[in-house]
Amino acid sequence: MTPEINIPAVLAEVQEAFARYEDALVHNKVEVLDELFWNSSHTLRYGATENLYGYDAIRAFRAGRPAVGLMRELLRTEITTYGTDFATANCEFRREGSAKTGRQSQTWMRTAQGWRVVSAHVSLLS
Amino acid sequence: MTPEINIPAVLAEVQEAFARYEDALVHNKVEVLDELFWNSSHTLRYGATENLYGYDAIRAFRAGRPAVGLMRELLRTEITTYGTDFATANCEFRREGSAKTGRQSQTWMRTAQGWRVVSAHVSLLS
Repeated sequence: MTPEINIPAVLAEVQEAFARYEDALVHNKVEVLDELFWNSSHTLRYGATENLYGYDAIRAFRAGRPAVGLMRELLRTEITTYGTDFATANCEFRREGSAKTGRQSQTWMRTAQGWRVVSAHVSLLS
Repeated sequence: MTPEINIPAVLAEVQEAFARYEDALVHNKVEVLDELFWNSSHTLRYGATENLYGYDAIRAFRAGRPAVGLMRELLRTEITTYGTDFATANCEFRREGSAKTGRQSQTWMRTAQGWRVVSAHVSLLS
C-alpha cells in the first residue's frame, strides 16, 4: 500500500523540474517560477520573511521582488518521489555574500499541465 | 489528471493525524512523534536550528530534546489533501514566551501503517 519510492523515470522528471526551477530562481525568470507553482488558492509559500497564501499572493510577491542577489550555491539536494504523482524536493543552499545556510522545501504534484509546486518553505538556519 | 483536492473523508483523516501530532508535540509524547514520522532513510526534517536526514537522525534528536517550553498556539493552519494518499499541512504558531512567529510545513503520505510525515520544515519568520 505504501507507494513505490523513487521510480527512476518519475525521479528523472522531478529532477528536471527542480533544475528548471533552480535555474529560473537564480536568473529571476519570473514567468517560469509562476508556471511551476500550482495555480490554486491552496498553494502556499513560507519565505524567509513572509507567509504567502494562494497562487496570486505568491505571484504578486515575485513580481515585486528585486532581481539582485539571487545567485546561490546548492550544498545538498534530496529529491524523493512517492508513486508516480508526488515528490518532495529539499535543499540546503548558500547565497552569494552570505555565511548563513538556507533550506528550501518543496512538495511537487503531477497535474494535467505537468509537475507543479503545491507547497514551499524557505528559511535560514538559526 | 490533477488529483481531486480535499476529498472530505481524506481531509478528515489527515486533520486527525495532524491534531494527534500537535498534541504529541506540545506534550512531548516522543513515542507518538516517532510513530508519525515515516520510518525511512528518505525522511527529512529541517528544524529551526538543525537539518536532520533520515528517520534515525530525527528520532535521536527527539530523544535528546529538553521537554520544556514546547507549548505553542496555532495561529493559522492549512491542510490540503491531493487525491487519497498525499497531503500537506502548514501552520503558523507562536511559542509561549516568544514574540516570533513560527512556521511548520509537513508533507504527509498514506502508508500501509497509516498517515506518516515524509518531510518537515520548521522555522521562525525572520
